[in-house]
Amino acid sequence: MTVDLTNVFQQIDGDYDNLKELLREAVAIQSVSGDPSKRDETIRMVHWMKEKLETIGTICELADLGTQELEGKTVKLPPVLLGTLGSDKNKKTLLVYGHLDVQPAAKSDGWDTEPFELVEKDGKLFGRGSSDDKGPVLCWFHAIRAAQKNGIDLPVNIKFCLEGMEESGSVGLPELLEREKDRFLAGVDFVCISDSYWLGTKKPCLTYGLRGICSFFVEVTGIKQDLHSGVFGGVIHEPLQDLMWVMSQLTTVDNRIKIPGLYEQVAPLSAAEEKTYDDIEFDVAEFRDSVGASKLPTEDKKTLLLRRWREPSLAFHGIEGAFYGPGEKTVIPSKVIGKFSIRIVPDMDPEQVNRLTVEYLNKVWAERGSPNVFKPRPGHSAKPWVVDVNDSNFLAGARAMKRVHGVEPDRIREGCSIPITLTFQELTGKSVLLLPIGAADDMAHSQNEKNNIWNYVEGVKTLLAYIMELGSA
Amino acid sequence: MTVDLTNVFQQIDGDYDNLKELLREAVAIQSVSGDPSKRDETIRMVHWMKEKLETIGTICELADLGTQELEGKTVKLPPVLLGTLGSDKNKKTLLVYGHLDVQPAAKSDGWDTEPFELVEKDGKLFGRGSSDDKGPVLCWFHAIRAAQKNGIDLPVNIKFCLEGMEESGSVGLPELLEREKDRFLAGVDFVCISDSYWLGTKKPCLTYGLRGICSFFVEVTGIKQDLHSGVFGGVIHEPLQDLMWVMSQLTTVDNRIKIPGLYEQVAPLSAAEEKTYDDIEFDVAEFRDSVGASKLPTEDKKTLLLRRWREPSLAFHGIEGAFYGPGEKTVIPSKVIGKFSIRIVPDMDPEQVNRLTVEYLNKVWAERGSPNVFKPRPGHSAKPWVVDVNDSNFLAGARAMKRVHGVEPDRIREGCSIPITLTFQELTGKSVLLLPIGAADDMAHSQNEKNNIWNYVEGVKTLLAYIMELGSA
Repeated sequence: MTVDLTNVFQQIDGDYDNLKELLREAVAIQSVSGDPSKRDETIRMVHWMKEKLETIGTICELADLGTQELEGKTVKLPPVLLGTLGSDKNKKTLLVYGHLDVQPAAKSDGWDTEPFELVEKDGKLFGRGSSDDKGPVLCWFHAIRAAQKNGIDLPVNIKFCLEGMEESGSVGLPELLEREKDRFLAGVDFVCISDSYWLGTKKPCLTYGLRGICSFFVEVTGIKQDLHSGVFGGVIHEPLQDLMWVMSQLTTVDNRIKIPGLYEQVAPLSAAEEKTYDDIEFDVAEFRDSVGASKLPTEDKKTLLLRRWREPSLAFHGIEGAFYGPGEKTVIPSKVIGKFSIRIVPDMDPEQVNRLTVEYLNKVWAERGSPNVFKPRPGHSAKPWVVDVNDSNFLAGARAMKRVHGVEPDRIREGCSIPITLTFQELTGKSVLLLPIGAADDMAHSQNEKNNIWNYVEGVKTLLAYIMELGSA
Repeated sequence: MTVDLTNVFQQIDGDYDNLKELLREAVAIQSVSGDPSKRDETIRMVHWMKEKLETIGTICELADLGTQELEGKTVKLPPVLLGTLGSDKNKKTLLVYGHLDVQPAAKSDGWDTEPFELVEKDGKLFGRGSSDDKGPVLCWFHAIRAAQKNGIDLPVNIKFCLEGMEESGSVGLPELLEREKDRFLAGVDFVCISDSYWLGTKKPCLTYGLRGICSFFVEVTGIKQDLHSGVFGGVIHEPLQDLMWVMSQLTTVDNRIKIPGLYEQVAPLSAAEEKTYDDIEFDVAEFRDSVGASKLPTEDKKTLLLRRWREPSLAFHGIEGAFYGPGEKTVIPSKVIGKFSIRIVPDMDPEQVNRLTVEYLNKVWAERGSPNVFKPRPGHSAKPWVVDVNDSNFLAGARAMKRVHGVEPDRIREGCSIPITLTFQELTGKSVLLLPIGAADDMAHSQNEKNNIWNYVEGVKTLLAYIMELGSA
């Protein structure tokens, strides 16, 4: 039995001033988790959200995470807001995750407006956090309040897990969730995260996969201190020359990985899965122009999306220990550490990727024949994540999007990692749905972050529809 | 007619306490030219030396160089001390160059003693500037004073050019010398610089050659901003991957340059010159151990010295624009600039080296086949310098060393540049002699800089003998 939401949706449209006002208040709180001088604001943001959730009947608790060392100071971690709305044993339970902290922002970084003042312009709401992730978190709040105002009984119990450290590596959260596995996380049937983006700007989508990552450090030493390139140039084996040569052996000009055995681990692409790429709305030229490239390694839509989402990639990040300033410095660095990472996809296993990569690096090093000391080692890793697009949680999300937008959402993946996704999946044993609200051009983490008014308002409707659809999931 | 210096030399030996006391006073003045907070001390050091030179009858003037911008502040440049001792038209004139400023130093850098307190231990005088270059400058002072005390008439007029900015690029000095070409520099017959080092620790030497330098910037761009390696990894041409590949094409594992045409420009090695390498005292194993290498590209004495002194070499310094901090950062840098330099030797011409290098870089880039934007460009350059080891100035230095040390000094070159050498040669049109006082292990620019008591005291004698030998040059 489908509840008719026509009237509620109209009321949500009419409630825009209120939707905007709450986002304005949230954006004004400078909850930059990476800045110790803004830690109090970050904590205040969690309290602000707690008060809001309590107005819709949520029973809230603040889970203390203790302190952390940041820039030489001991600072309090923001608590995690755990909320429970409804505990009907006859209903299933949805766990909603979101985050209340934001990336740093200053007008001097190149913003056109003050980043912590919400500004409406050309159908867009500009402000830090408007899209990542205060806007989507408020969509949940508005959706539930709209249902309550209209006397609609929610078909599921809802739990909230809202943190204030996502932009700073979710410090303490995985450990808290581990501790809460048999209490707060017990009885959860579905998980939904709205903290990613549409593939483009027009068509909604659902995200069913994320790449994992294996990062690497390649250290080369061989002289005991930095040397003057005039005095010693030409008569020593330079660690940096060795390192650049080794790094140059990892990829082709078209950015394909030369490490044997990596592509072989990738899950085969079935004809059915390949077919899903046909309908995905993605403009390669627009994408190329958005990054400012003159040409991409591939400009075929399907091949490009496959490489972003379900193939590994290797990126060089930089070198520690070499001269990095402007101008000139005639030094021979004595100890250099190259940094690169490999994005991994199903069925790649981080341990196997680490082993194959270090083996290849050692093989290349042996070919180099340098007497210097070579130490490759893996850094952090995260597993890839992929979900069954036909599970009931995913299908409820798809029905909700169709109900609001009138089109079947694209099924997409993301090239990046959202490690908490896997944590929730592993601890609850249940399906996690990534349901994005914002558009591809929202500029999360960058200057002039915005949320389109349309995305924000339709987002409230979509989340309400999703909650209702879970009733028949 | 050779003046017997036996008695003076004995008196110099007996004057050790006084020699040490003056060096103690000089070291105690923290004349770190690179540190704006120590600029007053640097200026004070110039005044201190002026007073000393005046006690031996030098007519001194302080040439004002104006101001410079340093770390965002406008600071006064230390004046250049120009001194004139004697103006006998029947005598030739020697110009002495030295510097009164020092490299930064702090006990916390790893010094065993306070760097600005002269400490005598195990026959060594530890302290910043003890060898580079306050010690040698004081040797000139002591030598002249010893002659005066013993009623010895100096056979040459002496001019001093002592600066306080050598460790910071000699800002303003070349322009001053240019202006002084027809006044202070007029009538100079010989130039002597004591600001380099013996090849080893036991045998004295004279330096007859220096390498020049051509430095290069290799810029690669192609995307308009830094990108997230998860979202974009695998579907763009990464500038840093291109740069590392290009840099890896410049040298072999044994640090030989792959740019065609460079080695061909090197002046042929005559049998006579090659033969001079036979007698040079140089311990390859000691050198290898001193840099902490397990193996060198060549461990043959002659080949190694030829590569340091009279062959070009290419060193990588680092990359600007890439991630350089500790830890991990999953960024794809958008604009990276590789830095390398080539040391050049006679008969290499900087312009030709720049042209060949940029041509080779462009050829390699064409082979790479990347659509990114590649901009190689030359940075600063300095010509190599070499002097005739049989000119009268050089031979006077050799006779002086033999008189003091009892052995014929080695004739050596240095791999590095001392650009002011060439400036003096070009402006005076006369021979410049590099006459080192300190030992190879003096640790100039490094922790625990020292001057051996033996080198310091024998240095006074050597400079006196050199002045006397110039009388018959």
